[in-house]
Amino acid sequence: MEETNLNQTIRCIVKLGGAAITCKNELEKINEENLETVSSHLRQAMNLGSCSTQVMGMDWSKRDAVSDISSSLCDFGDQCQFNVDFSRFVVVHGAGSFGHFQASKSGVHKGGLNQPLVKAGFVATRISVTTLNLEIVRALAREGIPSIGMSPYSCGWSTSERNVASADLSGVAKAIDSGFIPVLHGDAVLDERLGCTILSGDVIIRHLAEHLRPEYVVFLTDVSGVYDRPPTDPNAVLLREIAVDEDGKWSVVKPTPQSLNKQVEITVAAHDTTGGMVTKISEAAMIAKLGIDVYIVKAATSHSLRALRGELRHGIPDDWLGTVIQFSR
Amino acid sequence: MEETNLNQTIRCIVKLGGAAITCKNELEKINEENLETVSSHLRQAMNLGSCSTQVMGMDWSKRDAVSDISSSLCDFGDQCQFNVDFSRFVVVHGAGSFGHFQASKSGVHKGGLNQPLVKAGFVATRISVTTLNLEIVRALAREGIPSIGMSPYSCGWSTSERNVASADLSGVAKAIDSGFIPVLHGDAVLDERLGCTILSGDVIIRHLAEHLRPEYVVFLTDVSGVYDRPPTDPNAVLLREIAVDEDGKWSVVKPTPQSLNKQVEITVAAHDTTGGMVTKISEAAMIAKLGIDVYIVKAATSHSLRALRGELRHGIPDDWLGTVIQFSR
Repeated sequence: MEETNLNQTIRCIVKLGGAAITCKNELEKINEENLETVSSHLRQAMNLGSCSTQVMGMDWSKRDAVSDISSSLCDFGDQCQFNVDFSRFVVVHGAGSFGHFQASKSGVHKGGLNQPLVKAGFVATRISVTTLNLEIVRALAREGIPSIGMSPYSCGWSTSERNVASADLSGVAKAIDSGFIPVLHGDAVLDERLGCTILSGDVIIRHLAEHLRPEYVVFLTDVSGVYDRPPTDPNAVLLREIAVDEDGKWSVVKPTPQSLNKQVEITVAAHDTTGGMVTKISEAAMIAKLGIDVYIVKAATSHSLRALRGELRHGIPDDWLGTVIQFSR
Repeated sequence: MEETNLNQTIRCIVKLGGAAITCKNELEKINEENLETVSSHLRQAMNLGSCSTQVMGMDWSKRDAVSDISSSLCDFGDQCQFNVDFSRFVVVHGAGSFGHFQASKSGVHKGGLNQPLVKAGFVATRISVTTLNLEIVRALAREGIPSIGMSPYSCGWSTSERNVASADLSGVAKAIDSGFIPVLHGDAVLDERLGCTILSGDVIIRHLAEHLRPEYVVFLTDVSGVYDRPPTDPNAVLLREIAVDEDGKWSVVKPTPQSLNKQVEITVAAHDTTGGMVTKISEAAMIAKLGIDVYIVKAATSHSLRALRGELRHGIPDDWLGTVIQFSR
């Protein structure tokens, strides 16, 4: 697949981790507080350089009460005061407590669409993840971000033995060039060999990064970054800088390897069908290998806001908490 | 655009009219009773020839209460008793009380994406219509129909001066060939000349019919069919058969023109931005011209069930209430 043509470069691809925006242990429950803060941070990051503080809400659905719609529409009289030109971002989110239950109960990730349970699970998984997608699009729209839900299955993403086999990125590029913020998500997709499988948000991010070449990529998670062992372990040390070489191999630069007692361990959440931190680091390393900086940082914190705004591009301040994954020649 | 390749022919493309499945005068309110009956009718129509009466629900979302999910999953022990092989249908729905408000308040159909209000309206319209789409997919899934939401915007549909300019039907064909029922809808899309516009469900139906060549097309509406004047008029006469000639011109065959007192009048709902009955008849005539029978019938009635089951293909019974639009050489 060749590089996708865009009018201008994309500033940032951001992953909203499922664990950061949903309550992971409660079925289909959104972490409303985090989602609201993340949406506000995204607006601030996309709106850099604009002095307009007016937000033009773009979710005119009933949930906000009918009377509110009319009143907010009346305010739109002088449209010029509203800045709806946001810098070029793409948002991808994980599933968290949406989709995982349906996918794992039916084994969608293992394929076999001819089995009634898998077929039903495929439908149920897509219903669950598209429900989450709609809620995220609405949260962003309420912040005035012109977000457009683009479900990978519908956008023509399919896999072959879980690797991306086709993905029509021209639709994503066209949405960006039209001034929208595409919002994609981990999804159930057709697989040429298996029949079907789960395409994770992290794999989507890597594919997008490869073809859209953003300036930087931010992963918003529920912990401060990548640790040398499960972050619940009191002795866990945050890995602040990881270097990736030309072969895609990665090594910890900061803290210095000598100061780390033992081999880096990485957490794999037992219920994460797409493979927790292992997938994340290796996907991130493949992005960094392209010369694109990757920041893994806790969602809804001042650190994530700085990462989203691109403040880390010219050096990592000492007081910044998170993991940077960078290419080093 | 050439014809899209399918493993087998499609039996039916069905339009769920916005007025039939929503409460048209109440913002974003679904007509739950009608939607449930229509979904059940669709299952019966798609399940022809199967003696299985077991329904495998495919909406495993929280709304159905967590305990229900587990119990229904336990029932899936003997999967073989479930028939999840449905005959090949495509569902397209209108917007009804979803989307119209947002679209007309902002003038999305007139284009001009560079205006903040239009851009916001585009986002708001898509949020509203995709909310409806998700609810319809869920209603069908609860009936055991393996339905897959496919939003035209995401699927690469775009227009040029409101005519379909591009539409990637290979995704729809692939979904059908994989045993799913694609569910499309009227949507806000990008327009090459106007910037953006509204693509109506009726235009989508015509395009799909042209390229997928189904055996027949059914329009489910909130009235019994096409009348010679507004159906609210007590003297309105139901037009039972309309013939379409090779030039696409249509004429009433039954009741005989002599028995009709005057020129056929057609209703155009004032708030229908995509143009009520005029659009419907002319779109239907273009489908009939391809040799595909079109039935316009009241949703959630015995008449619509008969139409969906294909019972009218070899002749229209006298006791059937609705409008047939057929090609006549």
